Amino acid sequence: VSVLTTAERDRVCVVLVGSRNPLNIGAAARAMANFGFARLRLVRPYEPSFREARSAVGADAVLKAAEEFEGIAEAVADCGLVAGTTAGEQRQPAEPLERLEAGAKRMQAQLHAGARVAILFGSEKVGLSNEDLSRCQALVRIPTETGQPSMNLGQAVAVSLYELIRGEGALATENVAAPLATAADQERLTRVLADALAASGAGREGDETRLRRLVQHGSLTAEDAHTWMGIFRQILWKLKNGG
Amino acid sequence: VSVLTTAERDRVCVVLVGSRNPLNIGAAARAMANFGFARLRLVRPYEPSFREARSAVGADAVLKAAEEFEGIAEAVADCGLVAGTTAGEQRQPAEPLERLEAGAKRMQAQLHAGARVAILFGSEKVGLSNEDLSRCQALVRIPTETGQPSMNLGQAVAVSLYELIRGEGALATENVAAPLATAADQERLTRVLADALAASGAGREGDETRLRRLVQHGSLTAEDAHTWMGIFRQILWKLKNGG
Repeated sequence: VSVLTTAERDRVCVVLVGSRNPLNIGAAARAMANFGFARLRLVRPYEPSFREARSAVGADAVLKAAEEFEGIAEAVADCGLVAGTTAGEQRQPAEPLERLEAGAKRMQAQLHAGARVAILFGSEKVGLSNEDLSRCQALVRIPTETGQPSMNLGQAVAVSLYELIRGEGALATENVAAPLATAADQERLTRVLADALAASGAGREGDETRLRRLVQHGSLTAEDAHTWMGIFRQILWKLKNGG
Repeated sequence: VSVLTTAERDRVCVVLVGSRNPLNIGAAARAMANFGFARLRLVRPYEPSFREARSAVGADAVLKAAEEFEGIAEAVADCGLVAGTTAGEQRQPAEPLERLEAGAKRMQAQLHAGARVAILFGSEKVGLSNEDLSRCQALVRIPTETGQPSMNLGQAVAVSLYELIRGEGALATENVAAPLATAADQERLTRVLADALAASGAGREGDETRLRRLVQHGSLTAEDAHTWMGIFRQILWKLKNGG
């Protein structure tokens, strides 16, 4: 189960400020669709790029519904929490810089509380300006390496949204786990394996215990155990009835 | 504090299988540099793309040091845990599909135990094939929306690596795991098992794939794999040299 409901995701606004590259705008929109977000807002996009991205074959609903704004103030007017993303190297930030993990928790709390949340991403070249950052209540840093801090725009959007939807409650495997072999199945498998080993002439005192441990170690599913049994029975038959 | 040490990150191999788009190969390499990973391996890349990506202005050290392989077996031969990423829609997976959050925990445990870990990403068009997936002990799904499951390659790499390095103190609960058998060990075990089966007269077409899956399913430790090999070699010897 995801941490955010559909209604909560719908209150997240991804705001791209001054983006120039149509591929990056498209990639941001795609990541949004992948993770179930719909509100894309562009502040002063480079017009030809925006047009090109929008008219690209396969441009999806997110991009088609993207809204354009004159400035950040207009783009985030209806939002409760405004979080700016930054590599956090080049500037003296006004707000303390949080790692994404912590920033996302604050965003989630606001979304749960019914507020809209904006996440701002700067342009590929210069990121968010000091003026842009001054409009943010939270400054968020994706934990990149200090030697290589600056992420591709589409990848930064993907990682940020992933952090919002990843779930600690989702740690179990999703498929219904295959039932494990019963202790009795494991015992049968251990026996036939010991018999095959004995028939091969390599059997030793204490084999059963050693083999039982080996069989248990594998956490076999019932189906696996069945398959192994078939294999060893056949091998055993051959060993006993001649080669 | 990051969950993975520098030495542990250096044991992660990002394996791109059949990638065609130079921009995506470059984006994958950039995400690796952002998060402190260095080992990029390409299986059957589309040659002109690989050359173009490598010679791009600003192509970084990761891309320049990328290695090329003929097949997946060769690319992951030195790795203990091989995890395949999949949108998990189109196929009946052999292994249960795990969400990235859970899969990453298993990878971290293996890295802590000293093993190498491979993460496989399929081509932009078709993802990983069934044959490719049969070489994986873990199938990992980034938790995308069912209506829009398929991620851009560079973004999928970024999100997967981010999950590996993001920190929440999850480390504390980690069990110390025994290092898993390498893919090469598993392959050897699969072969000797197939040979034993053939020698017993029960061999069938397609055994190798079936047996490989069975061997991988068990998540064998290096020590277990060694023991099984000894058993099967003895049985095989007996089958061939008379009963």
